[in-house]
Amino acid sequence: MPGPVFDRIAIIGAGLIGSSLALAAREFRAAKTVVLYDSSEDVRKRAAALELGDVADTLETACSGADCVILCVPVGAIGETSKALAAYLKEGAILTDVGSVKERALEAMLEQCPAGVHLIPGHPIAGTEKSGPEAGFATLFRKAWHILTPLPQQEEPYNSAVDRLASFWEMLGARVEIMEAARHDRVLAITSHLPHLIAYNIVSTAYDMESVGEGEVVKYSAGGFRDFTRIAASDPTMWRDVFLNNKDAVLETLGRFSEDLAALQRAIRWGDGEMLMQEFERARGIRKAIIEAGQDTDETNFGRNKDGEKD
Amino acid sequence: MPGPVFDRIAIIGAGLIGSSLALAAREFRAAKTVVLYDSSEDVRKRAAALELGDVADTLETACSGADCVILCVPVGAIGETSKALAAYLKEGAILTDVGSVKERALEAMLEQCPAGVHLIPGHPIAGTEKSGPEAGFATLFRKAWHILTPLPQQEEPYNSAVDRLASFWEMLGARVEIMEAARHDRVLAITSHLPHLIAYNIVSTAYDMESVGEGEVVKYSAGGFRDFTRIAASDPTMWRDVFLNNKDAVLETLGRFSEDLAALQRAIRWGDGEMLMQEFERARGIRKAIIEAGQDTDETNFGRNKDGEKD
Repeated sequence: MPGPVFDRIAIIGAGLIGSSLALAAREFRAAKTVVLYDSSEDVRKRAAALELGDVADTLETACSGADCVILCVPVGAIGETSKALAAYLKEGAILTDVGSVKERALEAMLEQCPAGVHLIPGHPIAGTEKSGPEAGFATLFRKAWHILTPLPQQEEPYNSAVDRLASFWEMLGARVEIMEAARHDRVLAITSHLPHLIAYNIVSTAYDMESVGEGEVVKYSAGGFRDFTRIAASDPTMWRDVFLNNKDAVLETLGRFSEDLAALQRAIRWGDGEMLMQEFERARGIRKAIIEAGQDTDETNFGRNKDGEKD
Repeated sequence: MPGPVFDRIAIIGAGLIGSSLALAAREFRAAKTVVLYDSSEDVRKRAAALELGDVADTLETACSGADCVILCVPVGAIGETSKALAAYLKEGAILTDVGSVKERALEAMLEQCPAGVHLIPGHPIAGTEKSGPEAGFATLFRKAWHILTPLPQQEEPYNSAVDRLASFWEMLGARVEIMEAARHDRVLAITSHLPHLIAYNIVSTAYDMESVGEGEVVKYSAGGFRDFTRIAASDPTMWRDVFLNNKDAVLETLGRFSEDLAALQRAIRWGDGEMLMQEFERARGIRKAIIEAGQDTDETNFGRNKDGEKD
C-alpha cells in the first residue's frame, strides 16, 4: 500500500465536503496530518467535537507548512478566502478547491495565488442534500468522479503536482478526470446546475398553489415530487453562488429547457400523444445508458446519512 | 387475523401495478383466488411463467364470478377495457381501477358500468420506474397512500362496498384516503404529473445539447441529473395518457411552474442573490416537512427492483 501523498493538508471550510474530506484523508491514509479551519467559530467547535482532524483557530495556523490547501467554501467565497490565506502558503504547496464552477474559481484563486504555489482547481462530483460538519462521511468520494482543471501548458514541477493531487483523490476512492475549466462549466450546467434549479423551482411552485395545501403536497409526495425535494434541500448558499458564477452556461441551458418544455406544453394542449410518446421513449434510452455505465448503483449518496444509511 | 376480503378478484393488465397487486393479494391473503388477464398474449405467458396467479385467456374467463375487478391499464385504455368486460360483471361486484387520473377514469367507467355493479375508482400512490409483469413485487403498496374517489352521496350497499375495497387495500399495507376525483387530479398534477413532465423534459434537453456529448451527460450524471433520469424511465404509454387525460390541471400547474422559473432566470441574469437565497431556503422547509411526516423513508420504491433491492 502506498504511503500518504501529503505530509500535511489544510482543509478550509468544514461543511459536508470539507468534513468528508477530513474523514476520508485520515481513513484512507492519504495525508499524515489533516488540519481544518472554518471561518465560523461555532463550526470550528463542532468540527473539533466530531474529531474531524486538528482544528486550527486561524487561517495562518491552518495553512502554514501545508503541502496542499483545499478550499471547501462556496464558490462566491473563494476569492476572499484565497486573499486571506495567500501569505501563509509555502513555496511548492498546492492550492486547490472543490467548487462546482471552475472558470470563476480559477480566476478568483489565480488573482491571489503567489508565485511558486501550484494552483490546480478541482471539483468532486459527489454530495448529499445535507450540510454542515455533522453531514460528512469518509466514503463520500468513493467511485465519484473528481474533475481537475489544471492551468494549460505547464511544465515541471507543476505537472508533478497535478499527478500528486490526482493520486490523493484516487486514494479517497475517486476517479480523476482532467478537463478544461470552461468545458467543465458547460457540462455541469446540464448535469447538475439546471437539475438543481428545476428542483428548487418546482418546490416553490408547489408552495404557492392556493388550490392544493402544503399538507397534501407533503402527504402525496411519493408520486414523484419527493425526489425533487431531496435535491432542493441542498445548501442554499452554495447553490446561489453556483448560479451567480456560472450564469452564461446556466442561462443558455435554461433557455433550451424552457423551449423544450413549451413544446411539450403545446403537445398536451393539442392532444399530440405521438409527440409525447416519442419524447418519453427517448428519455428511457439515456437512463439505460446511465445504468449500463454503472453510474447508478448502491453508491448513490443522495438520501444517505453520515453512516451511509438511507434516511 | 381477518380472512380474505374477496373470494375472487380479477386483475386486468399485468404491468408493474397489476403484477404487484396479484403478488400482494396472495401474500397478504386479501383474496382467495387471484385471476389475471392481459390483452397481450406475450404478457399473459410471462405472467403465467412468473406464477403471478391464475392467468385467464379471455376477459370473460377473468371477470366471470369475480367479486372485484381491478383495471390496471393505462388511463387511455380504461374506456374500451370497461366496455369489453362490462357484460361479464356479476351483480354486486366492485369495478375499480388504479389510474393516475380520476375524473376521466370515472367518466370512462361510468359510461360502461352496468346497474348493480359498484363503481369505485382508485389510485395507489406507489410505483417504480420499471414496467412489465417482471417488475412487480408484493410490498409495493406498503405504507403507500391509496386514494379512493367513490361516487358522491351513495347509500347501501354501495357504502359497504367502499369499506370492503378499503379493507382490501389496507390488507396489502396501504393507507386509504377518500377524496373527490377532481381534487385528486389537482393534487396529483403538482405532486406527480408535473414532476414527471419536468423529468422527461430535462432528459430531452440534455440529449439535444450539441456542446455536451451524451457520454459526458451519462458520466457526470451524479451531480443531480441522474435522479431525473430515474423518474423519466417510467412507462411512456402510461404517462402519455396521464398528460392527455389531466390536461387542464397539468397545464395550469405547468403555467405556474414556467412563470416561477422565469423569475429565477431573471434573478440569475441580474445577479439577484437575495432572491435566489430566499427561494432556496423556502424549499428546505418543505423537505423537512416531508421527512417529519415520515413520507421519505426506506420504503421509497423508486430505484428498487422486484426483490426490493436497490439497483
